[in-house]
Amino acid sequence: MRKVAIVAGGEAKAGKRAASWRDLVQEAGKAMFEDADNMSPKDVDSIFVGAAQPERFAFLSYVAALVAEHIGVIPRKVLARTELACVSGQAAVRYAWNCVATGMSDIAVAIGVEKMYPPDMAEAQTSMACVLDREWDGINAFSAPPFFAVTAQRHMYEFGTTEEQMALVSVKNHHYSSMNPIAHLRKEVTVEAVLRSPVVAPPLNLFDCCPMTDGSAGVILVPAEDAKKYTDTPMYPIGSGQCAIGNVINNLASLTEWVPLKLAAKEAWRTAKITEDDVEIAEVHDCFTISEIMEYEGLGFCETGKGGKFIEDGEPYIGGKVAVNPSGGIMGCGHPLGATSIYHTIEILKQFRGDVDDGRYVKDANIGIQHSLSGAANQHSIIVYSREPR
Amino acid sequence: MRKVAIVAGGEAKAGKRAASWRDLVQEAGKAMFEDADNMSPKDVDSIFVGAAQPERFAFLSYVAALVAEHIGVIPRKVLARTELACVSGQAAVRYAWNCVATGMSDIAVAIGVEKMYPPDMAEAQTSMACVLDREWDGINAFSAPPFFAVTAQRHMYEFGTTEEQMALVSVKNHHYSSMNPIAHLRKEVTVEAVLRSPVVAPPLNLFDCCPMTDGSAGVILVPAEDAKKYTDTPMYPIGSGQCAIGNVINNLASLTEWVPLKLAAKEAWRTAKITEDDVEIAEVHDCFTISEIMEYEGLGFCETGKGGKFIEDGEPYIGGKVAVNPSGGIMGCGHPLGATSIYHTIEILKQFRGDVDDGRYVKDANIGIQHSLSGAANQHSIIVYSREPR
Repeated sequence: MRKVAIVAGGEAKAGKRAASWRDLVQEAGKAMFEDADNMSPKDVDSIFVGAAQPERFAFLSYVAALVAEHIGVIPRKVLARTELACVSGQAAVRYAWNCVATGMSDIAVAIGVEKMYPPDMAEAQTSMACVLDREWDGINAFSAPPFFAVTAQRHMYEFGTTEEQMALVSVKNHHYSSMNPIAHLRKEVTVEAVLRSPVVAPPLNLFDCCPMTDGSAGVILVPAEDAKKYTDTPMYPIGSGQCAIGNVINNLASLTEWVPLKLAAKEAWRTAKITEDDVEIAEVHDCFTISEIMEYEGLGFCETGKGGKFIEDGEPYIGGKVAVNPSGGIMGCGHPLGATSIYHTIEILKQFRGDVDDGRYVKDANIGIQHSLSGAANQHSIIVYSREPR
Repeated sequence: MRKVAIVAGGEAKAGKRAASWRDLVQEAGKAMFEDADNMSPKDVDSIFVGAAQPERFAFLSYVAALVAEHIGVIPRKVLARTELACVSGQAAVRYAWNCVATGMSDIAVAIGVEKMYPPDMAEAQTSMACVLDREWDGINAFSAPPFFAVTAQRHMYEFGTTEEQMALVSVKNHHYSSMNPIAHLRKEVTVEAVLRSPVVAPPLNLFDCCPMTDGSAGVILVPAEDAKKYTDTPMYPIGSGQCAIGNVINNLASLTEWVPLKLAAKEAWRTAKITEDDVEIAEVHDCFTISEIMEYEGLGFCETGKGGKFIEDGEPYIGGKVAVNPSGGIMGCGHPLGATSIYHTIEILKQFRGDVDDGRYVKDANIGIQHSLSGAANQHSIIVYSREPR
């Protein structure tokens, strides 16, 4: 199994865009190829497309060959779309990594895309109810906001977590996204503003929730030994963890302890030969403020139940124990489902390169991780990256 | 990169089923685990789900964890749904193979499913228009039947292929499917019956077209060195080819020469270290009779333009040059999009084991291939299997 490097990344501006599904892909694809030296689309032999629901948001299916055509790639080794709801983009990166590792591919693109503001917004909102177990949970109104609201309620009850602590996550992430030019939301918020924003599902208010967003982002993967042909600053995937336990909410072992996250993290640290203490940048899935708090816990940055205190103590800020979501997270950058986790990948690449605003730069970091969850937090995926080959 | 084996397969009965999407998955999953010795669902660490359009056919998305839960698997290494329209199932097999090869997984399931008879058939029929490039081709009525009809017209014009030759494909495949207990359509047809069946898109009549079908099929992959723990009769993926050129019909290089098929075949033979003459069983994508004729040509079983004569001469029958679709093909077995190509995989496994009716048994075969195409035949995928480890 050969080692692999990520040598380039490109993003479409995230937001409520006057751009079609295809426009978004082209914008990210163009930026991605411009970011690589000595590389043209024709050099790429494989493509993996992360897209969660193009069938519903854009009435498009069979999107892998479509995306290839739109960015000028002729896949002649491997191609597929990967879908894993909010983790679809990371799934594309993982498959690309695997194929370059086995030699099935020599140069692979992983690109994610989602157009979440279609002409018919009612269709888009209905579609979101597909993501949790629709027949059992969706039908009982357990779409994402009420599920995470119940989770937050239980976390508050069991551990004394407060609405103010949750609001701090939103404050932190909007602070960083205000400095991120590709972010959907570029304004600071205060604890008071979060607490006074409209109720979505108690205790979650509007600013506890990530926005719906249009976006696309893509990266190029090559064998590690070839990386320097294409960039002076590659980064290297060195470990991975993924775990899903159950699907329907009834079958979750616990609301307040994300067991699959703990198992995915354990596997990621094992395969990367690191511990959680080595992680300097963590781009994690803050679809709701409570999620990020539970991710501090599940990733082992603090004890179970202590996530609220962790943010209160400033630990997930740059300069604290670990920089969590220096991009601004999903909360600030937006959540274009299939593209989201490739924005994560590129954020880590940019951080390693020092290619970010000073106010959100994690200087000299060597280890970064990306984490995403999907559904009723029953599935968690992590990839660990190193700035140097290992 | 370690070698991999397929040790078990299980299928749901294909057809117009009074069964839900989930029922189909459970039926295939149960059969699959019953087919493996010393294996329980809990032993599986990874799952790959081939599904083309659950979002539209079943209003379900994020189906990988859902399927895992329904067949009792707890994926703790890798999971994803793979989508590549009609090739979604084969894409799942390829990803599973890759992950076992790299060691990211030790025991992986690849399972495909499609429920194409939902309560609202208008919805299902509309959804099929997603598969060809919807905005450019679908909107101009280029869904699958008219596209393959135009292809057939051009093949007739350029090469003198006849409607009778195309009908022979349907006759052969219905002959074999009549002996296949899992097939959707189990009755013989005659050339006359094909020619007199209702016109769908000239020159294609109803019996030139595969049916819409509900189905599910799954296989289990393990490292080759462990295969004999789970079965006396494993089979081994030894090579692979996949190629897509363009997407929108305007951009196809040719209607009558499938260049991506030729390139995928070349890559499959190269990686498997075989030639087309070594292929004894070919399960290929006969979505329309013209497709199978062009696959004889593209796979190199005969010259370009000679596919009509190839079937007229009896070459793709058992006992001819190569047994093509001894299962009965998609034409006879049905085409549940995401599951179709895993039925192919299992057919080859059953043939190697001698676990089929005498009338459709390819005795002592050592090399079998599965082929599928998607969209405007712009994408072709092939996996080569060996009965013995290589």
